[in-house]
Amino acid sequence: MIKQHVGLGEKSYDILIGSGILQETGARIAALCGRFKPEDGIAVVTDSLVWGLHGAAFSASMAAAGLGFSPVVLEPGEQNKSLDGLGRLYSDFAAMRLKRGGLVVAFGGGVVGDLGGFAAATWMRGVCYIQVPTTLLAQVDSGVGGKTAIDLKEGKNLAGAFYQPACVLADTNLLATLSGRDFRCGMAEVVKYGAICSKTFFESLRERPGAAELPGIVDMCCGIKSGIVERDELDKGERRLLNFGHTFGHALETLGGFRRFNHGEAVAIGMLLAAETGEKMGLTEPGSAAAIRAVLEIHGFETVCPYPPEEMLPQMEMDKKNEGDQVQLVLIKAPGEAFVHSTDAAELRSLC
Amino acid sequence: MIKQHVGLGEKSYDILIGSGILQETGARIAALCGRFKPEDGIAVVTDSLVWGLHGAAFSASMAAAGLGFSPVVLEPGEQNKSLDGLGRLYSDFAAMRLKRGGLVVAFGGGVVGDLGGFAAATWMRGVCYIQVPTTLLAQVDSGVGGKTAIDLKEGKNLAGAFYQPACVLADTNLLATLSGRDFRCGMAEVVKYGAICSKTFFESLRERPGAAELPGIVDMCCGIKSGIVERDELDKGERRLLNFGHTFGHALETLGGFRRFNHGEAVAIGMLLAAETGEKMGLTEPGSAAAIRAVLEIHGFETVCPYPPEEMLPQMEMDKKNEGDQVQLVLIKAPGEAFVHSTDAAELRSLC
Repeated sequence: MIKQHVGLGEKSYDILIGSGILQETGARIAALCGRFKPEDGIAVVTDSLVWGLHGAAFSASMAAAGLGFSPVVLEPGEQNKSLDGLGRLYSDFAAMRLKRGGLVVAFGGGVVGDLGGFAAATWMRGVCYIQVPTTLLAQVDSGVGGKTAIDLKEGKNLAGAFYQPACVLADTNLLATLSGRDFRCGMAEVVKYGAICSKTFFESLRERPGAAELPGIVDMCCGIKSGIVERDELDKGERRLLNFGHTFGHALETLGGFRRFNHGEAVAIGMLLAAETGEKMGLTEPGSAAAIRAVLEIHGFETVCPYPPEEMLPQMEMDKKNEGDQVQLVLIKAPGEAFVHSTDAAELRSLC
Repeated sequence: MIKQHVGLGEKSYDILIGSGILQETGARIAALCGRFKPEDGIAVVTDSLVWGLHGAAFSASMAAAGLGFSPVVLEPGEQNKSLDGLGRLYSDFAAMRLKRGGLVVAFGGGVVGDLGGFAAATWMRGVCYIQVPTTLLAQVDSGVGGKTAIDLKEGKNLAGAFYQPACVLADTNLLATLSGRDFRCGMAEVVKYGAICSKTFFESLRERPGAAELPGIVDMCCGIKSGIVERDELDKGERRLLNFGHTFGHALETLGGFRRFNHGEAVAIGMLLAAETGEKMGLTEPGSAAAIRAVLEIHGFETVCPYPPEEMLPQMEMDKKNEGDQVQLVLIKAPGEAFVHSTDAAELRSLC
């Protein structure tokens, strides 16, 4: 088992990564007593897919630790990451009488983590929560770093909170149950870490990883991410580099109604568009886009953007990272090194 | 003009109190540039009553400072302090393209402050906001201290965030436009500060205050509250004393469908019930309830609880301050000194 510490003062926490950690969940939660009180309630937010596959193992582990809990089982899918989905969680928390000293466990992928985390951040103005991410995307990205959010019809992740979990438990065995498409979704973020921070890691991704390599990959990604989060928790500087591919990607997701592309598929095309844009601007080394395209194709990603610039640009102008009329674009110098470039819509339009 | 500093490290801010401060709003907001960027948008959340009375003065002051803004004018009333009301604000923020570097101004009473503050706390995971409280309740209580919230059908203020404003501007001239009932609503909290912290202040409330005394009263209350918030921002200890009368009061508000009693009317009866309960427990000096009743009657409050204990108790068990099966009740030793008493529902039932 690999243990990473995220150092954020009073808000510090550990990320545990390895195969079979799910069986330890109850014991790990029991070890957090003091930061929460079991008698104040434990809500387990999950979806029916995850609960069907892993609910029995989770429940057994909680029972072994003597912990009772109330499951809140959502239908799978991004549509729950909404104000309505948030209201549903609040109602369930009220019905189970979850108190301020209680605990929320977000047991699932990115949707469950983002929504469950936001509900925890705001229920009674904040209760303790932990992330038990079950997808590659959540293990390497959304489950780590304390960003919680819901989508609005106007855009993705437009409302949310920075709210750190008390612990993250990432069992890489669970990744074996993902569909090819869901696994690929996470691989886009894995490729992103290489593209923004480590040429060596990026190049190691020219082969598809086997199960034995997954703990190492999750560890590498969490290490990069938690380092960045430690230096810039509130996304005012360096943390923005993690959004490489995401400005274009969010536009793709929104235009596709959050159905046509999953997050990773959108980010994959977004990284390629960002690299191509950087090359046109003369800020990205020629050949970088081709290198990214090659890695993405190895992992089975579609690499063609189906929307014309005139549809993409208005979406990009709504991006949270923007300031005034400037679009804040994350670009790479070459795979392994990223930077933020401030541009205006006119310049962007002239290049697309 | 009175200036108070609330010392909360990076989250510190000033409270400005006095007559005529509204005319300085634009200049005060302009002075905060750097903490926000005017070009990223300024949303002014208000209600039609406040906007009708004071919108022109507010707008003139903003124009004089060269600041543009988008008003978001709600219908008055507690019904907007809901998930739907929050969604409405998010949509308006999206429509005006309010960016992460922008500003939200909560210009109104407690509902506007709580809802506008919560929207600011969560829009793009948090934008800068200021409070311009227009009611006595908001000036002495809800506008100060960074508690933001919405109500759920299951109870009041059940979802929210601790999120500090960048500044509070309390113009006591605005209080002249309040109805007698709305003014009284704030007086309940004023009496509360006396009851929990200062016998002298409590006794000074045996006369109704004139307009000239209002800046001093608001100053006294903000001073007590901000001192407590500085020592206990996240409501883990001393800050709970501010909930004197509120456990009973929230039950009254909920049972009355948030219509029969306004917040202050409910808290007034709640303080009396708390004093009576304390006397029955032998923890409150005999005569304290009578002293509180006398002050409340001077200010025109109803002092009879219309609901039987069997309706009140289940509501009180849902209170945010509770831990496990214990109800955390704020009691007074005598007017001027408060403490938290942990009790269980059975004990409470035997006394009511």
